[in-house]
Amino acid sequence: MEKMRIAVLGAGGLGKACLEVAAKKKEVKVVAMCDSNGFLYSEKTIRPEALKRFNPSRDPIGEIIKLKEKFDGIFVALPNLPNEFIPSVVKRFITSGYGGVYTCALKRTSAIKLMMKLDPGLKRNKSVYIAGCGATPGLLSAAAVLAAQSFIDIEDVNIWWGVGISNWDAYRATVREDIAHLPGYTVSKAKKMTDEEVESLLNKTDGRLKLHKMEHADDILLKKAGIVDSLDRVSVGGVMDTRHAEKPVSTTMTLTGTTFEGKRSSHRFILGDETSMAANVIGPALGYMKRALWLKQHKIYGMFGSTEFMPIFTR
Amino acid sequence: MEKMRIAVLGAGGLGKACLEVAAKKKEVKVVAMCDSNGFLYSEKTIRPEALKRFNPSRDPIGEIIKLKEKFDGIFVALPNLPNEFIPSVVKRFITSGYGGVYTCALKRTSAIKLMMKLDPGLKRNKSVYIAGCGATPGLLSAAAVLAAQSFIDIEDVNIWWGVGISNWDAYRATVREDIAHLPGYTVSKAKKMTDEEVESLLNKTDGRLKLHKMEHADDILLKKAGIVDSLDRVSVGGVMDTRHAEKPVSTTMTLTGTTFEGKRSSHRFILGDETSMAANVIGPALGYMKRALWLKQHKIYGMFGSTEFMPIFTR
Repeated sequence: MEKMRIAVLGAGGLGKACLEVAAKKKEVKVVAMCDSNGFLYSEKTIRPEALKRFNPSRDPIGEIIKLKEKFDGIFVALPNLPNEFIPSVVKRFITSGYGGVYTCALKRTSAIKLMMKLDPGLKRNKSVYIAGCGATPGLLSAAAVLAAQSFIDIEDVNIWWGVGISNWDAYRATVREDIAHLPGYTVSKAKKMTDEEVESLLNKTDGRLKLHKMEHADDILLKKAGIVDSLDRVSVGGVMDTRHAEKPVSTTMTLTGTTFEGKRSSHRFILGDETSMAANVIGPALGYMKRALWLKQHKIYGMFGSTEFMPIFTR
Repeated sequence: MEKMRIAVLGAGGLGKACLEVAAKKKEVKVVAMCDSNGFLYSEKTIRPEALKRFNPSRDPIGEIIKLKEKFDGIFVALPNLPNEFIPSVVKRFITSGYGGVYTCALKRTSAIKLMMKLDPGLKRNKSVYIAGCGATPGLLSAAAVLAAQSFIDIEDVNIWWGVGISNWDAYRATVREDIAHLPGYTVSKAKKMTDEEVESLLNKTDGRLKLHKMEHADDILLKKAGIVDSLDRVSVGGVMDTRHAEKPVSTTMTLTGTTFEGKRSSHRFILGDETSMAANVIGPALGYMKRALWLKQHKIYGMFGSTEFMPIFTR
């Protein structure tokens, strides 16, 4: 069976992690990649070491678009600041007539709402996009769809994550996105912060960011899947420790509902503490990419959420 | 949107529970049902009270087959003793040309292997069968497919269930199926036991049955989904308390693997203690029925396992 050829947009923490995970998977090879300054193509595979050898370019996305016949799927690992950035990039691929598939690990409800508008263009191109395929949304909200099956009425879904990173430099964009959720901060304010300003903020809280009621697309994707009727039934929050690799809490999805026998109860999905954010985002993203290719093979086109399908394990 | 019309084969614990769950769901109605002695059809819906009003018949399955244009899907809630019973019943429907969908809550690996042979006939009829859609296999093995996404290598999957039933009379066939897993017992031996012999066995262990390394189709369905290479990587066992409604242990699926960073870890999916076996079997079975109808609508036919798809929540 042919390997799944992937283009990765973005070479930050997630993009680099995608290279490392793909290097360990037989069914997957990354053949194209870009960041804000350059791009790379290799028919054989792009190894993590190749990141230094990007070809400079003023329009790296445009270069990847020129290569659109050379890959089967795109993993959109770009930082989505501002909210319209990733949708605008995807629109360029749609306009170019790209007929392959896409997955992303977009997190914000408002971003996913923008993505959903791309459905007609994707259908015209006989293309498939599965959005929100990281950890949350992604793995954890898909687990909520399974958990919901036991119940008649769903009361709420709560996702409480724990992340430990030994230093925040490796995930600059991700940390800024999280800061954007703090009271008093916005997406644009966080984007403009210098590294020193971020460091200063983190110093005030012993390196920990505790976030409640984050704007997270688990809500809209669970609504789309018919699990909840209103977005406020889903809450996402957590604790990021930017100074230790160990998680401060175990990442847990809890779905509460009432069964046909009138019993109120909760199912829980708990991630192992030793599993990193990268493993829990890239793994599902690749599994959903394989599912997206399955959908295209079966002539099912358009924009979908990770809550609508089961990913297919990639070896 | 039209309600999903269902025929239920079997009126034991699972069949009756299906009526009760369907009564609380707007999208579902049970229009046909049979047991070993009779059958019932009602275009409006069959309520739990209607069980007393079955029409006697020497071939209840044959009567349901005559009604095959009147329902969209079949829930096979028959006791599968012997192992070939359910496959033989499904073959009758296939031979009749029934073009709808099916789900079941079959549990044994050997039974699912027999079911898989029915794929060609189902495809010819443009029919869809999703097998093993209960709790285990079903909800818990589907959770294992999600959990697997974070890992490069899967070490093993363990399912340890806890069931409490206030008295075993309501689940006679299920308890006998569990006894069949005990050392020294077989499927045929368990089928032949009288109620008194079952009671006597249960008295020796304070009403508790503790089962290890059960023959459970979670193994073959997880292999089919590419999660494990060999069946012995999956183990299913548990504790049934036949004298108390409360679960003796919390039902837990644990998947252990190694991530791309070389970290060994386990994800867990834990069912709420207040959720009964019925809720955790019938809920998923109806969700997978809705998925089966989706597959048929998209011209994807044949025999599948619950590990291959995400159920669709039914309201």
